[in-house]
Amino acid sequence: MNDLSGQNKDISPSFVSDYMEGAHPEVMKRLLETNLERGAAYGADGYSESARAKIRKACNAPDAQIYFLSGGTQTNAVVIDTLIAPYQGVVGAASAHINTHEAGAVEFCGHKVLSVPAKDGKLCAQSVRELMEEWLSDESREHVVMPGMVYVSHPTELGTLYTPAELKEISGVCRKYGLKLYLDGARMAYALGCPANELTLAEIAELCDAFYIGGAKCGALFGEAAVFPKGSVQSFTTILKQHGALFAKGKVIGTQFDALFTDGLYERIGRKANETAEKLKAVFAAKGVELAAPSPTNQVFVLLTQEQLDRLAPQVGFSRWAPVQDGRWIVRFAVNWATSDEEIAKLAELL
Amino acid sequence: MNDLSGQNKDISPSFVSDYMEGAHPEVMKRLLETNLERGAAYGADGYSESARAKIRKACNAPDAQIYFLSGGTQTNAVVIDTLIAPYQGVVGAASAHINTHEAGAVEFCGHKVLSVPAKDGKLCAQSVRELMEEWLSDESREHVVMPGMVYVSHPTELGTLYTPAELKEISGVCRKYGLKLYLDGARMAYALGCPANELTLAEIAELCDAFYIGGAKCGALFGEAAVFPKGSVQSFTTILKQHGALFAKGKVIGTQFDALFTDGLYERIGRKANETAEKLKAVFAAKGVELAAPSPTNQVFVLLTQEQLDRLAPQVGFSRWAPVQDGRWIVRFAVNWATSDEEIAKLAELL
Amino acid sequence: MNDLSGQNKDISPSFVSDYMEGAHPEVMKRLLETNLERGAAYGADGYSESARAKIRKACNAPDAQIYFLSGGTQTNAVVIDTLIAPYQGVVGAASAHINTHEAGAVEFCGHKVLSVPAKDGKLCAQSVRELMEEWLSDESREHVVMPGMVYVSHPTELGTLYTPAELKEISGVCRKYGLKLYLDGARMAYALGCPANELTLAEIAELCDAFYIGGAKCGALFGEAAVFPKGSVQSFTTILKQHGALFAKGKVIGTQFDALFTDGLYERIGRKANETAEKLKAVFAAKGVELAAPSPTNQVFVLLTQEQLDRLAPQVGFSRWAPVQDGRWIVRFAVNWATSDEEIAKLAELL
Amino acid sequence: MNDLSGQNKDISPSFVSDYMEGAHPEVMKRLLETNLERGAAYGADGYSESARAKIRKACNAPDAQIYFLSGGTQTNAVVIDTLIAPYQGVVGAASAHINTHEAGAVEFCGHKVLSVPAKDGKLCAQSVRELMEEWLSDESREHVVMPGMVYVSHPTELGTLYTPAELKEISGVCRKYGLKLYLDGARMAYALGCPANELTLAEIAELCDAFYIGGAKCGALFGEAAVFPKGSVQSFTTILKQHGALFAKGKVIGTQFDALFTDGLYERIGRKANETAEKLKAVFAAKGVELAAPSPTNQVFVLLTQEQLDRLAPQVGFSRWAPVQDGRWIVRFAVNWATSDEEIAKLAELL
Repeated sequence: MNDLSGQNKDISPSFVSDYMEGAHPEVMKRLLETNLERGAAYGADGYSESARAKIRKACNAPDAQIYFLSGGTQTNAVVIDTLIAPYQGVVGAASAHINTHEAGAVEFCGHKVLSVPAKDGKLCAQSVRELMEEWLSDESREHVVMPGMVYVSHPTELGTLYTPAELKEISGVCRKYGLKLYLDGARMAYALGCPANELTLAEIAELCDAFYIGGAKCGALFGEAAVFPKGSVQSFTTILKQHGALFAKGKVIGTQFDALFTDGLYERIGRKANETAEKLKAVFAAKGVELAAPSPTNQVFVLLTQEQLDRLAPQVGFSRWAPVQDGRWIVRFAVNWATSDEEIAKLAELL
Repeated sequence: MNDLSGQNKDISPSFVSDYMEGAHPEVMKRLLETNLERGAAYGADGYSESARAKIRKACNAPDAQIYFLSGGTQTNAVVIDTLIAPYQGVVGAASAHINTHEAGAVEFCGHKVLSVPAKDGKLCAQSVRELMEEWLSDESREHVVMPGMVYVSHPTELGTLYTPAELKEISGVCRKYGLKLYLDGARMAYALGCPANELTLAEIAELCDAFYIGGAKCGALFGEAAVFPKGSVQSFTTILKQHGALFAKGKVIGTQFDALFTDGLYERIGRKANETAEKLKAVFAAKGVELAAPSPTNQVFVLLTQEQLDRLAPQVGFSRWAPVQDGRWIVRFAVNWATSDEEIAKLAELL
Repeated sequence: MNDLSGQNKDISPSFVSDYMEGAHPEVMKRLLETNLERGAAYGADGYSESARAKIRKACNAPDAQIYFLSGGTQTNAVVIDTLIAPYQGVVGAASAHINTHEAGAVEFCGHKVLSVPAKDGKLCAQSVRELMEEWLSDESREHVVMPGMVYVSHPTELGTLYTPAELKEISGVCRKYGLKLYLDGARMAYALGCPANELTLAEIAELCDAFYIGGAKCGALFGEAAVFPKGSVQSFTTILKQHGALFAKGKVIGTQFDALFTDGLYERIGRKANETAEKLKAVFAAKGVELAAPSPTNQVFVLLTQEQLDRLAPQVGFSRWAPVQDGRWIVRFAVNWATSDEEIAKLAELL
Repeated sequence: MNDLSGQNKDISPSFVSDYMEGAHPEVMKRLLETNLERGAAYGADGYSESARAKIRKACNAPDAQIYFLSGGTQTNAVVIDTLIAPYQGVVGAASAHINTHEAGAVEFCGHKVLSVPAKDGKLCAQSVRELMEEWLSDESREHVVMPGMVYVSHPTELGTLYTPAELKEISGVCRKYGLKLYLDGARMAYALGCPANELTLAEIAELCDAFYIGGAKCGALFGEAAVFPKGSVQSFTTILKQHGALFAKGKVIGTQFDALFTDGLYERIGRKANETAEKLKAVFAAKGVELAAPSPTNQVFVLLTQEQLDRLAPQVGFSRWAPVQDGRWIVRFAVNWATSDEEIAKLAELL
């Protein structure tokens, strides 16, 4: 097996990603407590129902249809394929996850990803408007992929956050041009648990046609919650099955989201990680390491020289993101609920 | 949410399916013990490596490539789509899971399922031979879907088992005609833990091009192990990602299979359930209820009259399979490691 | 190149298929006359508009949307993929062209073909009703491909014809269960030009959601006319383009259909061939050769012994259809507007 | 029907596209002469064989497999889908036809189009090299679409031509990195008939894994010839059928290519159009209209002001290509074998 991330796997401290551990202890506790209980399959069990009720409440979306899936790429591909027509494409930032690190899962379902430029990982309403005006004014537009949806992620792939005004403007453009709006919330906990964040789940539910609340990167053992805030998606269980995405033991994911949406656990998980990320940023600042993106959440992007990279690589886990013009690299350090202060201290020492 | 199985969900005893609980306690224990350990993502962690080593040994297949997926339909669709050419079809029994209860997941990947008749859920070599001879002698065969693979399940959807001689003959026909052979082992534990079973994992590995060892229905919290016994499948991680089937926290499934393949747990789980199934069959026999299929494993198929169905339905969980000519129904009662003798006794009483 | 039909290719008389010549002379004449005229591309030219107007009139369907495509399998695949949801399947006779000789083109678009038994190539309303009732009563129907359309061909693959009552009943069942009805009219001319036929284009347009009027097998150089009798299909030009099925020089097909629907040419072409087929059947009857299907149209299916086959094969072109139990073969002899009486006479002699 | 090009359809002179007429008279003559002859279907007829022999000779590729298809987008989609693995993508210029005006036909087959910048419509070897180096050095490359092929068009969408050195360098990069090289020759006649062109069919056949020789835009009634110069593509007839792209009356396209490759007709058609294009460019130069691309072939791209556009639009047919920063438009004027000197003169007058 070709283990691309393997070079760092036994290293501590490790900031390679935010999904290297199992579940947050409170989630694991619930899984254990309910382990022997029987539940109807495919999400029809009581824990899934309870989790759905809590999510609906958190989203102020009493009619929301909510489904639990086992992975983020899967969720993106199935939701996009469900909400747009087979001949439509999905508009995303050049840096969007669906456009970069999903191995063409959206294209596998037959849809083109239409790239627009992004700033700090954020797509802007104006670029969607321009794309639509260009398409509409094109004499040959019947031969050009029809845009059907806008995809945003919050936090973005660079850890940045949309403001309510920004998302409102994007949503307005979408409605004007008949586009669906879909928000990838793989790391939603880090948005909700961020003091700088002003976008609530209720606003997201109001502005978007669909979104997902991430579990795997936010304290769950695994699992994601796809939300259609206005309901009305037909045959989604069949669509999930057809895509190989219908999880048999729905209870196992439902129980976790039930725990995550109890006593504010989901936000707490995000907040704790963001606080750790602030400490990390302070360490970098103290060492004169420049930030590569203004992320207020749990992913910290910095610029390291090749020399710094070579020196750190044997002792610390991180992800090389991309090289930049001056020879430095954009490098990602990710933290989560399980990252300890000792690890931050050790990194400071190594720097 | 339209809960098709919901009518029985709070009923005890319930024999609706073998995947209503969480994990077998020994599996859960390992998940808990390793929960806070970090592991490289996407199956590159140590527990996944350990599980792979144990499975390779159990299969006597030192070169096997092994991948952990989160669901059975997903595994079938991805493996089939990987091993056959895009223009080929897969041959399966009319009752094959891919042909009935997977919502067209194989067709979603572009492949036709070519049905052949089955007896007690088992496809026979002769019908594959006839299909191939018919195709080869067809003047228009370039216009007919080219068969590329044979799909069998073991145990079958009716709980029956292939003998080594039967699978050997099917494998021989496949090799003669250049077909891949794939075995769906969603309930493999019940085969391995069945005294009547003579087919070992090593033989399956020798005879098949791919197979999967089921977790979700066999004591795992969830997860399946896809095995390519001769290795040599290229870019499968990318293929998984493209299909939305690459599980991020590989460690979580790897740990479970590591536990299942330690101290014979996997077989023990199957054996226990099969013994319970024997008790269940004895109950039916005592009450004069006829068996609908000669299943020696954990799924018991019986013929119930409409009157019996109506009487039992409010008090016992089970699955209606199909009506038969004389007005009776084929009904499935499934047991697993968690089914108790008390439940069997209660069913006996209700009958 | 592996030429499967090649064994007979230089033989005369040849009854291998009804699409071995170019265009009927009246069609060719119009192509020649209009050859140097310019027309807007993609079907927006005047000849295509004129052809559409004539077809709308013949179908008594003033709102019909009509598109010209270059092949039959292409038309079937695109229309089916357009009218049903991505997760739905299409119901067809076991002998349906989409189920046998289209190399899985429907599955390539992601849809399962749901087979029902047929008699003389004709599917019956009752088998659709049973399929739907079985699906609706299935507790697991969310896991089973949802039927979305019924496919019929008229004439069928065996040259037989639906009566208005039969198609009306099928259409009624479709409407009751929310299924689309699609009719493959690859050989429609032979139905319209058949004294036994009672089904008019207007009735077909009333009963079906879509159908196509075949050109290639009915006197055109090539080309098929897809008809949505009630209009209202959105973005079909884009869908065609996406499927590689948008024909650039629409004028070339439009001109042909304009000719075919002028002065009753289309029906005349069919009538002439059917009359020739009657002569052919008389020859077979005189020689004691049994018919294999009650076809009143241009395809004649007979039962030949192996000895007859071997004797005829070097001197006459025909198509082996399928072997039957008693060792004989079902053999197809196809005639068209270009088949001469001399050829019939020569066959009589050879028999 | 929404006729996007319709605004100009009755206008003369018209330079809207190079595929508004039927066939070149010499092609039409052959179609007429052979119209009543019978030929085996699906390309197994003698005329198709003869055309293939002539193309093999012109390409100096005795082992070439050659297939006749009915459209260019279809040819691109099927050939790309055949030559790359299902999980691979195809690299093309941002302006590549597959990336812009094919409505996502490549994505419909599951493949991502990987855009690289282009200059005057031409992709350069260096940008492919950079893309591959970036992919290879990406730690997460298993999650990124694997490049599998490079797509170029010759002439390009802007009418420009690759030099032998440029294509050789691209081919070298492809072979180094294991990429297939595919050349879209929709307008190949205009390259072959251009004094500035140095790239022969034999060189293209040597450097590419596949290419197509365009008919519809180069004097044929319709039809394209897909060439695999080294042969060895398996089951392509079945693949064509599965994609709805197997043309039944192969003879009809074969006859045309037989005519086009007789007595240098194909090149003559291109040369005549290029000469006319030169006259057109002279007219523009005389009027001070700036060229927008250095096209030496039959498509002339100029920059027109909005005022010029508005004035010409009611009287001349052309295609608006794209607006540019300064308010002007890139406008395409296309000529072909049928464009007359009178039309050029009339345009000069109108300008």
